[in-house]
Amino acid sequence: MGAYDRSSYQGDRVTDAESTPARANIGVVGLAVMGSNLARNLASREGNTVAIFNRSRAKTDDLVAEHPEAEFIPAFSYEEFAASLSKPRTAIIMVKAGRPTDAVIDALVEVFEPGDIIVDGGNAYFPDTIRREKAVRETGINFVGAGISGGEEGALHGPSIMPGGSDESWVTLGPILKSIAAVAEGEPCVTHIGHDGAGHFVKMVHNGIEYADMQLIAEAYDLIRRGTGKSPAEIADVFADWNTGELDSYLIEITAEVLRQNDAETGQPLVDVILDQAGAKGTGAWTVQTALALGVPVSGIAEATFARSLSSHPEQRALASALPGPEEEFHVADADAFIEDVRQALFASKIIAYSQGFDEIRAGAAEYGWSIDLGAVSKIWRAGCIIRAQFLNRIADAYDEQPDLAVLATAPYFAEALTRGQAAWRRVVVAATQAGIPSPAFSSSLAYYDGLRAERLPAALIQGQRDFFGAHTYKRIDKEGTFHTLWSGDRSEIEAEDTH
Amino acid sequence: MGAYDRSSYQGDRVTDAESTPARANIGVVGLAVMGSNLARNLASREGNTVAIFNRSRAKTDDLVAEHPEAEFIPAFSYEEFAASLSKPRTAIIMVKAGRPTDAVIDALVEVFEPGDIIVDGGNAYFPDTIRREKAVRETGINFVGAGISGGEEGALHGPSIMPGGSDESWVTLGPILKSIAAVAEGEPCVTHIGHDGAGHFVKMVHNGIEYADMQLIAEAYDLIRRGTGKSPAEIADVFADWNTGELDSYLIEITAEVLRQNDAETGQPLVDVILDQAGAKGTGAWTVQTALALGVPVSGIAEATFARSLSSHPEQRALASALPGPEEEFHVADADAFIEDVRQALFASKIIAYSQGFDEIRAGAAEYGWSIDLGAVSKIWRAGCIIRAQFLNRIADAYDEQPDLAVLATAPYFAEALTRGQAAWRRVVVAATQAGIPSPAFSSSLAYYDGLRAERLPAALIQGQRDFFGAHTYKRIDKEGTFHTLWSGDRSEIEAEDTH
Repeated sequence: MGAYDRSSYQGDRVTDAESTPARANIGVVGLAVMGSNLARNLASREGNTVAIFNRSRAKTDDLVAEHPEAEFIPAFSYEEFAASLSKPRTAIIMVKAGRPTDAVIDALVEVFEPGDIIVDGGNAYFPDTIRREKAVRETGINFVGAGISGGEEGALHGPSIMPGGSDESWVTLGPILKSIAAVAEGEPCVTHIGHDGAGHFVKMVHNGIEYADMQLIAEAYDLIRRGTGKSPAEIADVFADWNTGELDSYLIEITAEVLRQNDAETGQPLVDVILDQAGAKGTGAWTVQTALALGVPVSGIAEATFARSLSSHPEQRALASALPGPEEEFHVADADAFIEDVRQALFASKIIAYSQGFDEIRAGAAEYGWSIDLGAVSKIWRAGCIIRAQFLNRIADAYDEQPDLAVLATAPYFAEALTRGQAAWRRVVVAATQAGIPSPAFSSSLAYYDGLRAERLPAALIQGQRDFFGAHTYKRIDKEGTFHTLWSGDRSEIEAEDTH
Repeated sequence: MGAYDRSSYQGDRVTDAESTPARANIGVVGLAVMGSNLARNLASREGNTVAIFNRSRAKTDDLVAEHPEAEFIPAFSYEEFAASLSKPRTAIIMVKAGRPTDAVIDALVEVFEPGDIIVDGGNAYFPDTIRREKAVRETGINFVGAGISGGEEGALHGPSIMPGGSDESWVTLGPILKSIAAVAEGEPCVTHIGHDGAGHFVKMVHNGIEYADMQLIAEAYDLIRRGTGKSPAEIADVFADWNTGELDSYLIEITAEVLRQNDAETGQPLVDVILDQAGAKGTGAWTVQTALALGVPVSGIAEATFARSLSSHPEQRALASALPGPEEEFHVADADAFIEDVRQALFASKIIAYSQGFDEIRAGAAEYGWSIDLGAVSKIWRAGCIIRAQFLNRIADAYDEQPDLAVLATAPYFAEALTRGQAAWRRVVVAATQAGIPSPAFSSSLAYYDGLRAERLPAALIQGQRDFFGAHTYKRIDKEGTFHTLWSGDRSEIEAEDTH
């Protein structure tokens, strides 16, 4: 589907192409909203001249007409597009992930030359980016998969950008991307993440963390609403207040905005009119699937992803609506104290979600041979992207102090916050459990916390079971080696090969 | 690695092959423990004559020598092997998943004929089985991926078998597999699951459920031990007692055995000597990855899989060991009452884990076009496999009554058990939360229960957030259509295309 058909743009335009002066330092292919906005952003920055190309001519013409200030150089064939770019030619593809992206890459490879740079700015799955980079590299052309976060507004005013690809490509691309990225505390929100698919990998985990963050906020809202009876507008005030403290972040800010919104038609709070079935575009699932392959427990992201899919099965929910909850009504005695508990539970759970996400990036870097600076990753998320938050400065501090930190949650600032917050966190999970209010992300984050710090886990029993039914062997706490008990024999222990 | 090299077996043996009478009705390729045991099982059943072949000759010779009663027909080349089989030739491959399996399939395709049947009895990932079935089908040969559960003992005495493949193959294969399968209440534990990869898909989910079941048992043990101070041997008695009631199952039975075992060397309970880092062979992760792709929340299996990976990161656990837990000591006042609560929590959580697993099978069948009889699946798990349990009769009842039931947990028997058990379940999750004992599978199952039965979920807020930052649109509870609020405009609502 959608393989790009170049035939209609060829022919006598080649003559035009030959006469086009190569004066654009950057080009954009694909002029839907994200692409147009990114092109306008590029054009607005000192030193950039932007070539644009779209499969259907109308979008190109419209963009040129609507934004004369951008002084775009429109191209109507790939040949023209290539001819309009100074060397090394640098083009950012902003089309749909999958085959449309492959089709544009194929077309650009035909008209670009060794040393030129093709950037995929879409939401590619990182194994696709690894594959593409490998294939394009053989032509001598650089291929860069760049995660771009921040949606349409971010693309226009300053996104957070996560480019992978070669060091060579970064020399040319770095200054261009720095010119358009969001700025946090004077620093542009872009860094060279690592080779080949590293950028799209990190963007994927960013989105996974976003799922967890949103689910945690939703649980916090639900608990406050059901526990205190406050209205959405009153809870908007709570979130606005939280946004002045350690939870200060874009998602908290917009939560207040959404909760404050009234539906014009019914006069009801908008959140009560919206159907409670959450959609998803797949990056949460990718993040969890990848974490499973890497052996990294990202339970917060998984529960958030599952919570969305659970919500989207109305036929199942209808059947289950007859299942009973607790008999007592849920009403907290001290609303302010409960809200403060929820705030602390949210912060603690958020620390776990980010810690798990960074764990996945660390494991991915080890698996794929990427040299990823985790502190730099946290810094480029401070502005331009959906999970931007004050909090990310503390993550940067943690990795500045200890770049190879194995669990982010154990860094002094976070350990201190968890120590301070754990009692409130437990009270909130207990309240939710007793009240029958689903809080999968809160409770799963706490279970992870308790699992990670446990001196001894019942995993030993699981190893015993596995040895019993499958001779999977086990290790001992008191000596080296791998052992098996002859369960269906005399139940003596033998040394075994470590085959499992 | 390991692509099969046939050259050493060819040459003058072809003459032998031509003279071999085709009298075996079934053959086994690959004579490691699982393959030998399966071959012996086959040979022990009335009506079967078993041809055997192994890449290295020694294993074949040994098996023939050690088991004269089996009257095996040994073959030393694929040609001989094919010649020894009556038509339609039927061979079960019992070699490692991956390339070794592909190599054997390639070799068999060369010597088999249209109508013959190649069965892969290994632990293949179901997309590989779909791919292989498609490729082999073009030769006119039937390819069947069959999940075989029960480990080495099951293979020898009667496994639970989950074959996919064509209806044609089932005509020949059915009676053979029925002859060797475990028997539950007079019925052989094998059924034709569905076409191509359906068998390996169902086997994968079986293993995923097994992960959840084991984790739930481990959490129950941990809570009882820490809450009551009982010794492993005393807790073995608890499990043995549970095994006489609704929890009656193989995993509960062997848990009692493992907990009762003392280490000869130290005199300590074995479970205290085993290193508490659980291994995994990947089928739990596959189950969750597949569920994510299907949009099915299998949170119990996911938490179980994550709990194993968490346990296996000692460097992270060492760092986190300084994080604090609750201040109060955990000690339950009434040990018997607590143990009964844990039993009910375990049963309720188990219902959820199975319900989620069957949800995945249902979704997989819809996605891949398999006609899977869920009641028949539960019946063939009643014996021979690791998750065999009395409980599966209740699942069969539920699907007998309502074959298209959308959530197993809502079937009358299970709904009643959940209704009865939910208060105890909540008390156990509350106790674990307050005591700082990680119970990710218990708490996640309960959160799923509360989510599924919730009249209203905060997913509506998530949709509001998504619409705010990404114009992802939302639906309304009061009318058809897809809507978007102009958040950065005048905040009026517009009808939108449903693009997300």
